[in-house]
Amino acid sequence: MSLVSGISLKELAQKIGADLEGDADKEVVGLNTLDSASNNEVSFIARKSFLSSLPLSKAGALICSNDLSEGYSGNKLIGEDPYLLYARCTKVFKELTNISPILGISKFVQVGNNVSISKKSSVANFVDISDGVTIEDGVVIGSGVAIGENSVIGCGSKIYPNVTIYDSVEIGSNCIIHSGTVIGSDGLGFTKHKGEWLKIEHLGKVLIGDNVEIGSNTSIDRGSVGDTLVEDNVKIDNLVHLAHNVKIGSGTAIAANSAVAGSSSIGKNCTLAGCCAVVDNIEVADEVHITAKSLITKSIREKGVYSSGTPFMKNDDWKKNAVSFKKLHKLITNK
Amino acid sequence: MSLVSGISLKELAQKIGADLEGDADKEVVGLNTLDSASNNEVSFIARKSFLSSLPLSKAGALICSNDLSEGYSGNKLIGEDPYLLYARCTKVFKELTNISPILGISKFVQVGNNVSISKKSSVANFVDISDGVTIEDGVVIGSGVAIGENSVIGCGSKIYPNVTIYDSVEIGSNCIIHSGTVIGSDGLGFTKHKGEWLKIEHLGKVLIGDNVEIGSNTSIDRGSVGDTLVEDNVKIDNLVHLAHNVKIGSGTAIAANSAVAGSSSIGKNCTLAGCCAVVDNIEVADEVHITAKSLITKSIREKGVYSSGTPFMKNDDWKKNAVSFKKLHKLITNK
Amino acid sequence: MSLVSGISLKELAQKIGADLEGDADKEVVGLNTLDSASNNEVSFIARKSFLSSLPLSKAGALICSNDLSEGYSGNKLIGEDPYLLYARCTKVFKELTNISPILGISKFVQVGNNVSISKKSSVANFVDISDGVTIEDGVVIGSGVAIGENSVIGCGSKIYPNVTIYDSVEIGSNCIIHSGTVIGSDGLGFTKHKGEWLKIEHLGKVLIGDNVEIGSNTSIDRGSVGDTLVEDNVKIDNLVHLAHNVKIGSGTAIAANSAVAGSSSIGKNCTLAGCCAVVDNIEVADEVHITAKSLITKSIREKGVYSSGTPFMKNDDWKKNAVSFKKLHKLITNK
Repeated sequence: MSLVSGISLKELAQKIGADLEGDADKEVVGLNTLDSASNNEVSFIARKSFLSSLPLSKAGALICSNDLSEGYSGNKLIGEDPYLLYARCTKVFKELTNISPILGISKFVQVGNNVSISKKSSVANFVDISDGVTIEDGVVIGSGVAIGENSVIGCGSKIYPNVTIYDSVEIGSNCIIHSGTVIGSDGLGFTKHKGEWLKIEHLGKVLIGDNVEIGSNTSIDRGSVGDTLVEDNVKIDNLVHLAHNVKIGSGTAIAANSAVAGSSSIGKNCTLAGCCAVVDNIEVADEVHITAKSLITKSIREKGVYSSGTPFMKNDDWKKNAVSFKKLHKLITNK
Repeated sequence: MSLVSGISLKELAQKIGADLEGDADKEVVGLNTLDSASNNEVSFIARKSFLSSLPLSKAGALICSNDLSEGYSGNKLIGEDPYLLYARCTKVFKELTNISPILGISKFVQVGNNVSISKKSSVANFVDISDGVTIEDGVVIGSGVAIGENSVIGCGSKIYPNVTIYDSVEIGSNCIIHSGTVIGSDGLGFTKHKGEWLKIEHLGKVLIGDNVEIGSNTSIDRGSVGDTLVEDNVKIDNLVHLAHNVKIGSGTAIAANSAVAGSSSIGKNCTLAGCCAVVDNIEVADEVHITAKSLITKSIREKGVYSSGTPFMKNDDWKKNAVSFKKLHKLITNK
Repeated sequence: MSLVSGISLKELAQKIGADLEGDADKEVVGLNTLDSASNNEVSFIARKSFLSSLPLSKAGALICSNDLSEGYSGNKLIGEDPYLLYARCTKVFKELTNISPILGISKFVQVGNNVSISKKSSVANFVDISDGVTIEDGVVIGSGVAIGENSVIGCGSKIYPNVTIYDSVEIGSNCIIHSGTVIGSDGLGFTKHKGEWLKIEHLGKVLIGDNVEIGSNTSIDRGSVGDTLVEDNVKIDNLVHLAHNVKIGSGTAIAANSAVAGSSSIGKNCTLAGCCAVVDNIEVADEVHITAKSLITKSIREKGVYSSGTPFMKNDDWKKNAVSFKKLHKLITNK
């Protein structure tokens, strides 16, 4: 990532709220790792474990705390929380390189009846917008997106290419939806009647709050009766499954390949690490943190960190212990 | 979900096969949960655990069994299996709100040579239909769908937007394929030769039976030699992986994020809960039910319920037990 | 899979490097399993376990080793490694049935400024190619593909329909990317500041080497600072998640539904079986093989086979052993 015209360290320090030590007029054009940064790029040090890479770095300036900058003689952008400065710095460079989308509706777009599309929004080619859709100000819709009847895309939201939004999906403001994600598909809702599966039709909506980011190839089903709900500031990774009528509380983050089954609710400010599964019809309290690949089979009423699974080991050892697992009950009850 | 013009309880009772107690002429416009239903909506009670919500419900009518309706003085739609009545009721309201698709082929559609598209089918914009494809009566193809050479979409099937169907895929009647799903991609088939991966080309087809529903962002690979087979009435959830030459028996349901590896077969009327994995080249008998997140590593010859994994617990406790798992073999063999 | 005009066994034997015993002029039109092959199809026997199907096979010729062909009186294509001959044979029949794509750019394609598209490449309809993109010789782009600014698709690579490639993604030569896959989405990068998630913008690229194959509905995130790297000859299955700044070493294969978290690196010539998870910021050495559904929580420094999890069993037995797992630490420490 690099720019033709850079930004001075003085201006950068102001934008990210850092104290500057060094050459205020020096121009930098990007952000890079300690090892890879060249003299016109900024780098950062967020942990002591990176200190060993510091002496060899050619970076033009270093984001750091007072603690982590001792002995470094180059230009410094200093703050108490260098990771926060780094985060803000990514935003500065992102904005400098961002190409503004062309406003308006592209040539090859299907627009239904009773559609409201803000003139301050941008709709790429090969987009299908069904009847009754509302697209608010500052929305960017990538190519190949399909939006079903009566859905709403709130102000400033960005929908990347090849996202599919079914009917009656309401997406709030300043959301980001990455490619391949599907919002509003039917859940796996069936009942057996005389040996055959009878489909439960899904009459509910999906409601997505403000400032929600959803990764790529994620699936969020609509409610069967009642709605699926993703509250404000929720951050969802790639390849995540949220079933019908799931509720995700505000500020919760869910990492990749996790799944939450039908009608379960996750509280506020929770984290699910990657590959977690939550079974159906349970409730997880606020501020619960679940470690990678855990299976949650019952409601969790108390905040804290929860886990399941076994440690990994060499396959030869694992086989012996795994076989022993089969004898565990007998071992314990024989005592 | 609501309608401008509703349906009388008399007509609704007839359609779903319920006994009506109460005001036969009352009009209802939708279905909702006990808590959220308003006076012109129907609600339902399928389990005793919902009884506590009943006194406060404003629902205009209640789907229930005789058992579960005692003490309720409002309008009732009564049957032995209230969940079945509820399922039928979702269908009634779905049909009342459904917008019929416009028949015919939209403006921006690529149609190859020797293609047969029924005049009773509907093809949205930005669809690519390759040579030799057959689209039967009553099929609905959403925007952005791609269909490869010589594939067939059977009567009454619905393909949601942005589905990709490769060549030589045969989909039966009355199937539903949700967005983002890919049918017919190559499997992970390679053999090492002189230290390099050599690709096994995939010459087989994918054959999908009748009344199959497939969720969003699911991947079904074609056979390498011989075909991948999904029999009638199979129901597959979101983000499921079916590898090359897998066979899924009729009536089986597979929940989200599950994976079945190459050449394995699952019997009839099985269920795989979410996040299950079945390794390659094994056979699972009919009527096998696998609990969430289990790994099946050997053929299962006998019907029943199967599981793997460990229970979840607080991370502090889990760490201790997980470390102990490493000593399990030694503990047992020392005895 | 069958052809109108076939290939003689003599020519087939030459192409796959087999010794031929039998009728050199016999024409075969396809490849099939022992059970299903008809007299004008070739079949193969790669393991002794298939020997029982041999007497009943109607195949017109058999790929086999000397060992595995005793007692078979039909035509034989013989080699030391019959699976290798089979792999080569799939390629022969694939090429015989392959339809050459029409070169050039289709009618409904959006092409940005400063784009370089080789005249020897093929771009289907409904493709969106952004500014600064380079498409080299012999590339095939399926319908509905979106390619972001300044991305490069190398010689001979095939991009199936509905793939999304973000900006600044570089794909090498002779790669295959299956439908629904997304390359270059942002990672789940956020930092909490005053109780709110602050987004880490992703300024890095994705770099994909030569001869890489990626299955359907897979997600590969771009680097935050620095790049995500997939080296030459890597083979990735369906529904795999590679997070920001992940590095996958050359020759490694990753099976379906696996996930590698942020900034972790996997060595060369490794295999991850299906549904594996690797946590963030760890390193896995070369030639490490991880069995299905394992969770890797620490760096692996030594080559070998690694596993985690418990064996599956009948649910009644499993429940007892799983409950006992909770008492394991107490059991061991009380001794």
